[in-house]
This record gives sequence, C-alpha cells and structure tokens, in this order.
Amino acid sequence: MTPTTAAVDPDKRTPGRPRSARAEQAIIDAVLDLIAEDVAIEALSIESVAAKAGVGKATIYRRWSSKEDLIVDAAASLKLPVPDLVGEDVRDDLIALLTSMGPSESATKRNHVFTCLSAQVQRSPELQVWYRKVIEPRRERVREVLRRGIAEGMLRPDLDVEVTLTVLSAPMTGRPIGGLQTQIDRGELAERVVDAVLDGARRR
Amino acid sequence: MTPTTAAVDPDKRTPGRPRSARAEQAIIDAVLDLIAEDVAIEALSIESVAAKAGVGKATIYRRWSSKEDLIVDAAASLKLPVPDLVGEDVRDDLIALLTSMGPSESATKRNHVFTCLSAQVQRSPELQVWYRKVIEPRRERVREVLRRGIAEGMLRPDLDVEVTLTVLSAPMTGRPIGGLQTQIDRGELAERVVDAVLDGARRR
Repeated sequence: MTPTTAAVDPDKRTPGRPRSARAEQAIIDAVLDLIAEDVAIEALSIESVAAKAGVGKATIYRRWSSKEDLIVDAAASLKLPVPDLVGEDVRDDLIALLTSMGPSESATKRNHVFTCLSAQVQRSPELQVWYRKVIEPRRERVREVLRRGIAEGMLRPDLDVEVTLTVLSAPMTGRPIGGLQTQIDRGELAERVVDAVLDGARRR
Repeated sequence: MTPTTAAVDPDKRTPGRPRSARAEQAIIDAVLDLIAEDVAIEALSIESVAAKAGVGKATIYRRWSSKEDLIVDAAASLKLPVPDLVGEDVRDDLIALLTSMGPSESATKRNHVFTCLSAQVQRSPELQVWYRKVIEPRRERVREVLRRGIAEGMLRPDLDVEVTLTVLSAPMTGRPIGGLQTQIDRGELAERVVDAVLDGARRR
C-alpha cells in the first residue's frame, strides 16, 4: 500500500506493529503541534516534525512519500463523524447538523489547528481535498434535510436550497470578533440560527 | 502628535512634506506586501519593512513607536467606507450593506491581506481593535435597519435582531471551498441571502 493511498483513507491502512503505530501517532501529533504553534504549512519541514516526534526522518519517509501527504493525513485525523439524524423533524435535524459544524468550545487545540488549516486551504490543493472531505458531507446532509422538508410540504416549494444551506452553515463556521458566535455555545447558536432561517424576518 | 494617536486616526495626522508622505506610503505598502506574501505578523520585522520600502529603520521609527502601531496603520489603510443607505426600503438597504461586507472579487491583493489579517486577529489585541473598527460599523448599520423594519411593521415584532444580523453577515465574510460564496458575485449573493432571511424557509 502506497503512502498516497494511506492519505486518502487512513482507516484502510495496515496497522503494523505496535511500535510502528506509536511512531506514526507521534509523527501525526508532531505535525498537529507545529500547526497549532502557527507554523505555516510551507514552512513546516520533515526535519522539524522528526525532531518533535523523536524519530528519524527515514521513519517518516517510510510511511509518507511527501510532506503534503503527511499534512493531509494529520488533518484527516481531526475528522469528526457526521451525526445521525432523527429523520422525523426538519428543525431537529437541522439543529443537530449545525451543532456538529465548525469549532467546538471543548477541544481547544483541535479548533486551533482546524482554524489554522482552514486559513491555509486556498493555497494548498492537498488541503482542499481534506477540507472538502470534512465539510462537504455535512453540507450535503443539510441539502438532503431541506429537500425532504420541501417534499413533505413543511418548507416552501420554491426554496433556494443552496442559499438556505449558506445562511444556515456560515454562522457556524465563522467566528468574528464580538460576534454572537463568541458569546453563546454552539448548541444555542444552532437553534437560534435554524429558527431565524425557518421563520423568516418578514412580518406574516 | 504621537504615533499612537496617528494609529487611532490616520486622517488627523499632519501630512508633512511631500517626500515624507511618499516615504510613509512606501512603508505602508511594504507592510501590506509582506502580509500578502504570508509573512506572519509575529515574523514581520522593521528590518524587512525598511528593506522593502527602501528607507532606513530610523525613518520608520520616527513615525511609529512599535511594529504593532505600524501594522494597525497599514491595516487601517484597507478600510472601506460604510455605504450610504437609501433609507426607504429595508430589503434594498440590507442588500447594499451586505454587498459592502467581506472580500470583493476585484481587489485581489487587498482581499488577500484582509484574509491573512483576519486569520491572525485572535492572536493580536492591536488587530482586534482594527477588526472591530472595520467590521462593527457595518454590523451596527444592519442592526439599525432591522430595528427600523420592526418599527415600521415590515419585520416581525419579536425578531431576534442579533441572530438575524449573524445569518445575514456570516455568508458575506466566510468563503468555504466549494461554497456559494466562490461561485457567484457578492451582489447576487447579498440579494439571495437577504431574500432567504426575509422570506424564511417555512411554507406559509
């Protein structure tokens, strides 16, 4: 199995001997630590990863053919599962999906790495692949729930699904200084965003 | 006048002799160029700014007492005016305000600097001051338009102004890979976002 395949689907990688697995985790952790220390991906070197992980460069190159593959694997380790949906109520499903989007309050280092990587995504084709894999499944679930709501007659038949997805998801992923996103937890934010978008601002 | 005061309000700064003004602009341009080249604000040095601007370090220190003051002044030069509002139609005013938010398609370098600085805002108290000055006036205008709409009876009397501001503004400032924000121009995006938020998704 080539390192490139491993980068695409880490779960299918042969686990190897325990010592090997430990080295691999140390290498991934070292990459995440360096990114969390604001090292730009262009400036991140195999030497610095090897030094931080306490392994030789050869140990890294045995598993990953390039720095880019290693960064994509490290980023992929941050992936969270898409939540199961109740499937009965459009409002409940949208709140569950939105709550699972964007940074959580609890996992500070993970958030910081996620934010740093997201800021660098435009410059890196490899990170764009990762970003699509993390972001797109949630966005597609939101579209499915909206289409279900239209089919069931709960949502307007002429609903603009793409822009509705955008107004639902954008508040969950951006964190402007002084914005509501920095003042309330994401469960409450998700609920208020969903109600605002479902009900609309116009007086009925 | 101290450099700190100059950083707070560049318009009130004494313009100085023409040569002095040219040097000042060259220094500001050098800072923006370095940020556009992805130099982190921690790594940005007065030496590198002086070299790029073709001036001596003393010329910089005569105007700015610290690197932070210089960066805030450079960032402040990116500020755009808040648009005038027609004041007759809530929908038109919201579209005008949203169109003025976030990155434009035309000014590429300006956008890139804006994005790089925004990504670094959390780490810098000075940049947070700048960010509030750029972002908050537009956000406050949106609140004013929403409150006017409630008072005039066009918007729901129980409108959640803070979350409505959030769902209106967040799509304009975030640019997820593959998102609607990267596919249509911001005038069209602003119009579709405003209509989605005014009309609501729920079937009437």
